[in-house]
Amino acid sequence: MEVVSPKGFLFSVAKAGIKYPDRNDIALIYSKKPANITGVFTTNKIKAAPVKICIKRIRTGIAQALILNSGNANACTGSEGIKNALQITDKVAEKLKINKEFVYPLSTGVIGMPMPMDKIIPAIDELVSNLGKATALDVARAIMTTDTCPKLTYRQLKINGKQLNILGLCKGAGMISPNMATMLCVILTDANIENNFMKEALRYAVSESFNLINIDGDMSTNDTVLMLANGESNSEKIQPKSPSAKILRKTLHELCLELAHMIVKNGEGVTKFITVEVKGAKTSSDAKRIAKAVSNSLLVKTALYGNDPNWGRIIAAVGYSGATVKEESIQIFINNICLFDKGIPTMKENKLQESLEQKEVQILINLNMGRGRTKIFTSDISEEYVKINSAYRT
Amino acid sequence: MEVVSPKGFLFSVAKAGIKYPDRNDIALIYSKKPANITGVFTTNKIKAAPVKICIKRIRTGIAQALILNSGNANACTGSEGIKNALQITDKVAEKLKINKEFVYPLSTGVIGMPMPMDKIIPAIDELVSNLGKATALDVARAIMTTDTCPKLTYRQLKINGKQLNILGLCKGAGMISPNMATMLCVILTDANIENNFMKEALRYAVSESFNLINIDGDMSTNDTVLMLANGESNSEKIQPKSPSAKILRKTLHELCLELAHMIVKNGEGVTKFITVEVKGAKTSSDAKRIAKAVSNSLLVKTALYGNDPNWGRIIAAVGYSGATVKEESIQIFINNICLFDKGIPTMKENKLQESLEQKEVQILINLNMGRGRTKIFTSDISEEYVKINSAYRT
Repeated sequence: MEVVSPKGFLFSVAKAGIKYPDRNDIALIYSKKPANITGVFTTNKIKAAPVKICIKRIRTGIAQALILNSGNANACTGSEGIKNALQITDKVAEKLKINKEFVYPLSTGVIGMPMPMDKIIPAIDELVSNLGKATALDVARAIMTTDTCPKLTYRQLKINGKQLNILGLCKGAGMISPNMATMLCVILTDANIENNFMKEALRYAVSESFNLINIDGDMSTNDTVLMLANGESNSEKIQPKSPSAKILRKTLHELCLELAHMIVKNGEGVTKFITVEVKGAKTSSDAKRIAKAVSNSLLVKTALYGNDPNWGRIIAAVGYSGATVKEESIQIFINNICLFDKGIPTMKENKLQESLEQKEVQILINLNMGRGRTKIFTSDISEEYVKINSAYRT
Repeated sequence: MEVVSPKGFLFSVAKAGIKYPDRNDIALIYSKKPANITGVFTTNKIKAAPVKICIKRIRTGIAQALILNSGNANACTGSEGIKNALQITDKVAEKLKINKEFVYPLSTGVIGMPMPMDKIIPAIDELVSNLGKATALDVARAIMTTDTCPKLTYRQLKINGKQLNILGLCKGAGMISPNMATMLCVILTDANIENNFMKEALRYAVSESFNLINIDGDMSTNDTVLMLANGESNSEKIQPKSPSAKILRKTLHELCLELAHMIVKNGEGVTKFITVEVKGAKTSSDAKRIAKAVSNSLLVKTALYGNDPNWGRIIAAVGYSGATVKEESIQIFINNICLFDKGIPTMKENKLQESLEQKEVQILINLNMGRGRTKIFTSDISEEYVKINSAYRT
């Protein structure tokens, strides 16, 4: 896979041996010029040390380096965890000779274990001296935990004759819930983007992508999406009123949605990609409640894993979602076949058998009560999910 | 197992062949005298036809027969479902020569399939003519779905020299969530109990037993707990101010708690019984939010299945529960070993290895913020759960 990289960003990876033996597990992203930065973070009240530091530093609006690792989340590690994360970013700043405050840490992995500083600190020397020898794809691979493939995508835009590059990379796999997934995501662009506009555009993109996916309903302590724009394309500055603002906003949303879909498809033990669409709900928050209940339902997810068009489990989840519903006005469709029509089972399950064996399943729930609607992307749950998560740490 | 049965109740079972071949799947419970009745039902907004009928009839406060079946929930079956359930109870009333309104239907099984009336109606003749030939244990067995053992318990009380018998039977297995479990439960007593007092006592017992258990977070359309008191013991009438009121209330609670524990232990694919205790929360509803998030967490449940004392997943669930929490005041104990002590990991996981291999696990979360507390009983999740639920219907 050839990766078109935004100008002015350099990458390196190394094997620190934090948890996994003999694979790259630490990575450095460096922007030659200080870049504008914005970010979105986990809404979990328990936040990992690196998240706390990112939230603080992002107020400056400037970044020049990101230091990422897998194998250890540096979460619930107390003041020692903060000290360790600061020691890591300080060391990066010192070696790169840049402002300490412009270095951002991102960690993913096991919660509650101290960072193995004796392994990480020496790896930083290696990362800095090897800058430019790795690609963004190597970085995506280094931050994998139970992911089975690296997740990366990019877009190119032409604005006033100048080519802009936007690259996104992320990791996902487990602890995936709306608001947000267990994930780290880095978006890099050589566009020149005004900071407040970038913030608004990223928030919109995340709310319509990463916040719409659900694998297991668990929400992590480490979720982080960072976007850096270093302006190296020498494009005009993109601001809310720029002619190019709309296209950038749209492109960023598409890029995040593509990454979000990759996360669901590569979820732990996932065999099916499921779209849960809700429409006709009384309110938009009712639609969300229903989509969340259905996409969280273990019984729905295991039925779909078993190719069983068990719409009864879907309607049970609709009923306990907390939303206002009327049995006699609900319609449930799977892959466009209506199975429950305003209170009456249609007995058309046999028409579904073949299409359910495919890798994508569409569930549509129409409440026929109002204009509330939403869409969530989720997955089935297999024995493999249980196997992975009962053996993940020990 | 010898079953001490309350006086004046007769039982019968039959093989209607509703879903399972060659096993009893339909049962009749008959009280010689009309009994006082009270009940608690699913809070799911989608309610099965038999639940709707029970809710209506229970206003009379009187019952004389219960007709129960497994294999078909008669849920989401529209007006046809109501018609079928009424036809079943009418037939029972006709054969028993009792008031139609005193017959209550209870169904459990697949949602959204019409009741196979051609199989059920003839079975009613058999049930009525065989009344007295079966035991309550046979009834408990006939209502099993994916349960692997029948669930029944009883208590005897002596009040003013009179012996009172209370018997409870239930089924559980999947779709088990607080408020309430996927379950049918019938409690029969020959005590003479004033109806309003019985209602209050049952509500209390259910809230402190069946409403505290959680297997998969799904809530069913059919959950029903019915309690019948026929007074055949000739005991004094038990009223709120009776000297025996307190002991009856306590006994009923114990009986329901024992049944609730049986449901968790016999949950689909369950290998461990887990108590999640929360204390020191700011409010009691915060305590409930936390206990629910932890007991719902797939990552917590799979970790415990794998004997992994992964408290990081517990604290992540605490953080996303929505409750007010402070990382630096949280303590997490597993089997009385403190693993996270007010912001700091204690690194005592190795002390736990042996005790985690046992069948019961205690999780205690102390927020150290206030007086809110609760306890939820839950289970681990194994590959077997997925296997059962991906193959349950088809």
